[in-house]
Amino acid sequence: MQLGMIGLGRMGANMVRRLLKGDHDCVVYDKSETAVAELAKENAVGTGSLSEFAKRLTKPRAIWLMVPVGAVDKAIADLLPHLDRGDILIDGGNSYYVDDIRRAKELTAKGIHYVDVGTSGGVWGLERGYCMMIGGETDVVRSLDPIFATLAPGRGDIPSTPGREKGGTAEQGYLHCGPNGAGHFVKMVHNGIEYGLMAAYAEGMAVLHAANAGTRSRAVDAETTPLRDPEHYQYDFDLADIAEVWRRGSVIASWLLDLTAGALSRDSALSEFAGRVSDSGEGRWTIKAAIDESVPVPVLSSALFERFSSRGEADFADKMLSAMRYAFGGHLEKLAKS
Amino acid sequence: MQLGMIGLGRMGANMVRRLLKGDHDCVVYDKSETAVAELAKENAVGTGSLSEFAKRLTKPRAIWLMVPVGAVDKAIADLLPHLDRGDILIDGGNSYYVDDIRRAKELTAKGIHYVDVGTSGGVWGLERGYCMMIGGETDVVRSLDPIFATLAPGRGDIPSTPGREKGGTAEQGYLHCGPNGAGHFVKMVHNGIEYGLMAAYAEGMAVLHAANAGTRSRAVDAETTPLRDPEHYQYDFDLADIAEVWRRGSVIASWLLDLTAGALSRDSALSEFAGRVSDSGEGRWTIKAAIDESVPVPVLSSALFERFSSRGEADFADKMLSAMRYAFGGHLEKLAKS
Amino acid sequence: MQLGMIGLGRMGANMVRRLLKGDHDCVVYDKSETAVAELAKENAVGTGSLSEFAKRLTKPRAIWLMVPVGAVDKAIADLLPHLDRGDILIDGGNSYYVDDIRRAKELTAKGIHYVDVGTSGGVWGLERGYCMMIGGETDVVRSLDPIFATLAPGRGDIPSTPGREKGGTAEQGYLHCGPNGAGHFVKMVHNGIEYGLMAAYAEGMAVLHAANAGTRSRAVDAETTPLRDPEHYQYDFDLADIAEVWRRGSVIASWLLDLTAGALSRDSALSEFAGRVSDSGEGRWTIKAAIDESVPVPVLSSALFERFSSRGEADFADKMLSAMRYAFGGHLEKLAKS
Amino acid sequence: MQLGMIGLGRMGANMVRRLLKGDHDCVVYDKSETAVAELAKENAVGTGSLSEFAKRLTKPRAIWLMVPVGAVDKAIADLLPHLDRGDILIDGGNSYYVDDIRRAKELTAKGIHYVDVGTSGGVWGLERGYCMMIGGETDVVRSLDPIFATLAPGRGDIPSTPGREKGGTAEQGYLHCGPNGAGHFVKMVHNGIEYGLMAAYAEGMAVLHAANAGTRSRAVDAETTPLRDPEHYQYDFDLADIAEVWRRGSVIASWLLDLTAGALSRDSALSEFAGRVSDSGEGRWTIKAAIDESVPVPVLSSALFERFSSRGEADFADKMLSAMRYAFGGHLEKLAKS
Repeated sequence: MQLGMIGLGRMGANMVRRLLKGDHDCVVYDKSETAVAELAKENAVGTGSLSEFAKRLTKPRAIWLMVPVGAVDKAIADLLPHLDRGDILIDGGNSYYVDDIRRAKELTAKGIHYVDVGTSGGVWGLERGYCMMIGGETDVVRSLDPIFATLAPGRGDIPSTPGREKGGTAEQGYLHCGPNGAGHFVKMVHNGIEYGLMAAYAEGMAVLHAANAGTRSRAVDAETTPLRDPEHYQYDFDLADIAEVWRRGSVIASWLLDLTAGALSRDSALSEFAGRVSDSGEGRWTIKAAIDESVPVPVLSSALFERFSSRGEADFADKMLSAMRYAFGGHLEKLAKS
Repeated sequence: MQLGMIGLGRMGANMVRRLLKGDHDCVVYDKSETAVAELAKENAVGTGSLSEFAKRLTKPRAIWLMVPVGAVDKAIADLLPHLDRGDILIDGGNSYYVDDIRRAKELTAKGIHYVDVGTSGGVWGLERGYCMMIGGETDVVRSLDPIFATLAPGRGDIPSTPGREKGGTAEQGYLHCGPNGAGHFVKMVHNGIEYGLMAAYAEGMAVLHAANAGTRSRAVDAETTPLRDPEHYQYDFDLADIAEVWRRGSVIASWLLDLTAGALSRDSALSEFAGRVSDSGEGRWTIKAAIDESVPVPVLSSALFERFSSRGEADFADKMLSAMRYAFGGHLEKLAKS
Repeated sequence: MQLGMIGLGRMGANMVRRLLKGDHDCVVYDKSETAVAELAKENAVGTGSLSEFAKRLTKPRAIWLMVPVGAVDKAIADLLPHLDRGDILIDGGNSYYVDDIRRAKELTAKGIHYVDVGTSGGVWGLERGYCMMIGGETDVVRSLDPIFATLAPGRGDIPSTPGREKGGTAEQGYLHCGPNGAGHFVKMVHNGIEYGLMAAYAEGMAVLHAANAGTRSRAVDAETTPLRDPEHYQYDFDLADIAEVWRRGSVIASWLLDLTAGALSRDSALSEFAGRVSDSGEGRWTIKAAIDESVPVPVLSSALFERFSSRGEADFADKMLSAMRYAFGGHLEKLAKS
Repeated sequence: MQLGMIGLGRMGANMVRRLLKGDHDCVVYDKSETAVAELAKENAVGTGSLSEFAKRLTKPRAIWLMVPVGAVDKAIADLLPHLDRGDILIDGGNSYYVDDIRRAKELTAKGIHYVDVGTSGGVWGLERGYCMMIGGETDVVRSLDPIFATLAPGRGDIPSTPGREKGGTAEQGYLHCGPNGAGHFVKMVHNGIEYGLMAAYAEGMAVLHAANAGTRSRAVDAETTPLRDPEHYQYDFDLADIAEVWRRGSVIASWLLDLTAGALSRDSALSEFAGRVSDSGEGRWTIKAAIDESVPVPVLSSALFERFSSRGEADFADKMLSAMRYAFGGHLEKLAKS
């Protein structure tokens, strides 16, 4: 079927490529003429303005927005004058599901259908397919099925879940999760889990990495806790090999572990990384949702706060601790200036 | 090659079966005559005493212990009188690596070689193979290679890690990690990570499960925080479908997720489970090791403490909190008796 | 000076009593005629309707609302028709500071001044005075100074902070923290800290309480981690005595500890408490604010989630963990039904 | 009564001073002749060797060791040849209670009594008195009562706990907690709580400190989560005033808050501190004890790990996270080199 794509960054462009391979017609637009020209060479219909973009699409239009989260509302506002009742707007970015609820309400009043799609797969999606979590009206989502079916990974060689008989598109890698916002809600939690998984591997690797702590001598002063049993910490582990062996038959095998094994294989000291870890919103929103729901999420929140700390955001609290220690114990030696 | 196996519980018996399929000779012993008889029917050499067991093994003997962690020291003590210098004792259970270091020292003094093997794979190992993390002397571990190679999953259809060129047994699913204790140290951290991964999925699923919080009315009193935006929590998610869709192309795909999908597919309310979650030691030891190493592990420790709490171990602390609230705020209404 | 008080629950009524003792004129209103009559006996001016209430107050009126957080907006709406430009509305409850910002904007448009006051002191405030954190316009807050000065504890016998020379009302126990919302923002964080402090004491007491773990025998099975050194856990501590001794000269002396000592002195088993710990919103909002600010708050969030768990809110996640353990390890024995 | 003191650092010397003021006889020894001479001027009996030290003490001797935790065993070994059966050795430092249990066993075999005393009070103890938590044999501890009574703060002007009628020394600020190790066990948990309290204040202050987050512009890119409501974070709080106001009548008043107010009063930016926070062992041991006891301590462990992180100990885990993000999302921009 025909799909219009606005936003030809890496994600948007690769989705168009996967759709073209699947024999869909793609009309594309981006502020960057180069990006449009690039895809036009690959048989997409390139357009130079939103007006032209809208004209090249058959009504009712199906338009996929793949723009940064902070740019979605403006993109919709710019596009609206060119749309007609019955058109479908799909937000495939990382929107906060609360915005989806608001937008759907606003667009419904204008006769425009809104679909929110949380997309996972990163830079690997072109090849592996995109896992999609979808929110919106049932009929509207169903009408887009050819698009989702092509973008999704499909069954591939992933074995069926034993005992699962209900079928459905989940086994193809896309799912209509519920009404508007449902897609990005599920994607939000997906990323919250992702933070937790990543932190679990990272902390475990750090424990292995420091397993030679007994070979180093610690300062002997009142400010340093001595290691009681240095003979228990004499291991120099090969982290790349360990990640590799866990990929085979262990309980913790996963795609993130595959990537970890690759990263450690290239450089087990990870020396090219500074360790300032960004977060892109979903982890935060997951914790906020959990708080609203009264659901305890100590692991997911710890993972989020670890990222904050990695960027120096704990500095003031840490100084406060040092100031207190100085106040009651006279721990002068930790003054920055000395 | 020939291997003696002591301990024919599910794990030990299945390992023998996998070895027999791989054309190894297995001499087996267990306190349960039935367990021995069962495997004897499958072509293992059954024995009725440790003395007979030792006699049926060619020197230098290779003996694998697969007994509960609390029974290992006694098993070794019972076996020792029947052993000779040069024999190899393998502990394949879930021992604390600190015990390995001690045992290796004691056994070395007697001329016996000790090998510690952390084994992952659970009830699926017979079919999928066991992921093994091995500690011990290099020559001794190498001499057991045929055994490890058969027990391990092998390469299977798991793709190679891109860029990995060093080869080695890790790609077969077993790894000599270092000197004694190294095997169980790596297995310990493996399980620590496992706790973290499991908690991340469980917390995320709980957030999805409660995403209909806005459809329920909360008590309106000073003790209950009102939900500000009930319209944001109106989703009734199908958790089985969501776990299923994440298996395909998402960043959080993993074997644990496969199992989660299976469990939710059978009963998405998980009503047959009470939620009292045991822990078998490795998670605790991982945190203790991290503390000794000064490595922060907020995620792994949160996962452990969540398990403690699930078993009611937070009760006294919670009562203490209630007592304080009553003391300063007169929050009478939460008295258990009222 | 004259103050109108709406809401004569324990907090509101006691504040009126403290003001009356300080020779202020109090006009009071509550839906409960009994509550009004009670205070009228103590020399407050009781009124039977908002209309009468407004008439008895001299313009520009100063009106303090002390109603449940969920009732504030309605109380303001009901009161508005009776107010005039220049009047001052004070919200002394536990409002979310975000609501203060909104209300101040709405009321300013009508010429009404809004002041938000976070109040700490609980049931002890009548006797000890109330610690007040205030947000609003500088002139307006200053005009209410006589009220705040009377409600506050004053210097009392609390020693001055060494080196502090700037003076100001903070030393009297009340503080103009900033523009609207500032009072409740500071109170919100105050309560967030309170949760953390309480949890620290509660967890520590729980560790002491279980220090006799070595005297009890643990189940010996694969689901239970054995205690390696039972001889290290043979202490039967007197928690009431320990809380008491810490009150004198220790680093952790505090008012919360005083209350803890009292609670343990009455019943060190805390048997009248069920341990289902409520939270009244501020703890949640503190974590949300921290997330918005990118400030890591692992301790404060752990304290909040501990409360959620105490109320059974971790149940689904715990069942999910059990389901996974069953799936990979066949840990049948923890089925609820068996 | 007479007491011998070994170790005349700040803590030991001040304890001697307090004892001298209380008309006790103090025989002192330290490797530093200057330290000995200093106290000799203040009427202590200075000695130049352990042999002389022992001779100047009346049998049965009462000897207090106030040396760094790592030096206690050696100090005891050096002293032993000069002791006689019936003598009492008191360890007043920060020993691990597990060492107390071992030492008591060893010394009992030699007829020497061992007493472990956890001491809180820091640099303020000379003036305020020391809070002491004591472990040892009942008769032996009782025989030292005059010493403890003098070192302790006494009742002072701290009000009695309402309802407490049992009396006892806890109200004087010292307590015989139980058999050997009990003193340091209680002190250990005391410090564990201390870490939690400090972290709660520090995190709360950090949330206040960043309450102007909305006044700063954040980077607008895929790596940065935008602040949705900058108008909610426009507060420039005076932290010194806020700490001060909380000292009066609030639920979170405490001695640590008094010190916090002092520190912020001097410099609310805390600019002289680097924020690398040491830990001296007790916090770690508290977590280990909790793990052995199966008691969840998410708050206390979070506080400990926050300290580890403040010293850069999370760096490897953070790099691991960055490496994973790069692997699945191509987040190139966070490479350290770029």
